[in-house]
Amino acid sequence: MGRIEVVLAGSGGQGLLLIGKILGEAAAIFDGKNAVQTTAYGVATRGGFSKSEVIISEDEIAFPEAMNPDYIVCLSPQAFDIYKGKIKEKAILIYDKDTIKCENKEYYGFSMTNAAVELKNIRILNMIALGILVKISGIVSLEAIIKSLEKNSPLQFRDQNIRAFYKGFEMVS
Amino acid sequence: MGRIEVVLAGSGGQGLLLIGKILGEAAAIFDGKNAVQTTAYGVATRGGFSKSEVIISEDEIAFPEAMNPDYIVCLSPQAFDIYKGKIKEKAILIYDKDTIKCENKEYYGFSMTNAAVELKNIRILNMIALGILVKISGIVSLEAIIKSLEKNSPLQFRDQNIRAFYKGFEMVS
Repeated sequence: MGRIEVVLAGSGGQGLLLIGKILGEAAAIFDGKNAVQTTAYGVATRGGFSKSEVIISEDEIAFPEAMNPDYIVCLSPQAFDIYKGKIKEKAILIYDKDTIKCENKEYYGFSMTNAAVELKNIRILNMIALGILVKISGIVSLEAIIKSLEKNSPLQFRDQNIRAFYKGFEMVS
Repeated sequence: MGRIEVVLAGSGGQGLLLIGKILGEAAAIFDGKNAVQTTAYGVATRGGFSKSEVIISEDEIAFPEAMNPDYIVCLSPQAFDIYKGKIKEKAILIYDKDTIKCENKEYYGFSMTNAAVELKNIRILNMIALGILVKISGIVSLEAIIKSLEKNSPLQFRDQNIRAFYKGFEMVS
């Protein structure tokens, strides 16, 4: 595995930084690779747009910016509008098909909002998206991501975060 | 104000990412500037070392990496060993003098661990350090940082985080 770039894009308050941190720590602390997580605020985030980038590599990471993302997760229509049509060949774009309209069959739509509603907590949409991303990409081991979820979830949210992660993980067939 | 680079360095578990996020959001969401926060895991963090970088600018931020930090906050002896003697002219290094030995009078030592102990919570060392940094640097407004502290603290920790921030803020004369 060379350098893998991931963009987690959506709106503020969706917990994109948290899943970026969980993914980065899974790769680095528990899988023994290197990871850098970057979150921009300001110009890039006006009007509610927000994103977190994670770069994972077995080598040292010289440039912390995602220039050509391999995986893009879009959790809002605005995020989708920014990335659609601009991704490199073989890149994988994953989106929430409950809130984003998309006719491009090459992108990977999942019913994430409905899944969160089924779990009676819309705030865990981020964990569902993380489960889908990890299953599709295999960029971190299942063991590592569960350990990182446990490490980074406050005790009272630990079970529901892990349940939501597995819900997403199992949505990928 | 041009581009300002801040490095928050210490050990894992000290909550450096959280204060980086609070600082970045204070600058961007509440002061109307731009900010990028970057956290590295892996090689850069082996042996317990951990850091979070925040860049603040009125202009768009092209490179998200802190190349020549203006402010360096060191919360562990290991972090201090990495940065001491390597900072650029006019850069300000702030350190916890309860845990770090330093004979260089140009650096800014504060009794942070003792202050945290006085507040009966060693886990808020990060908030004390944030208060000191904001008072010394003036890189964000007091109003903005308090709003960001409120936004980013779970309800049960809000009061103690703000109290610890002010404790640090008032340690700078």
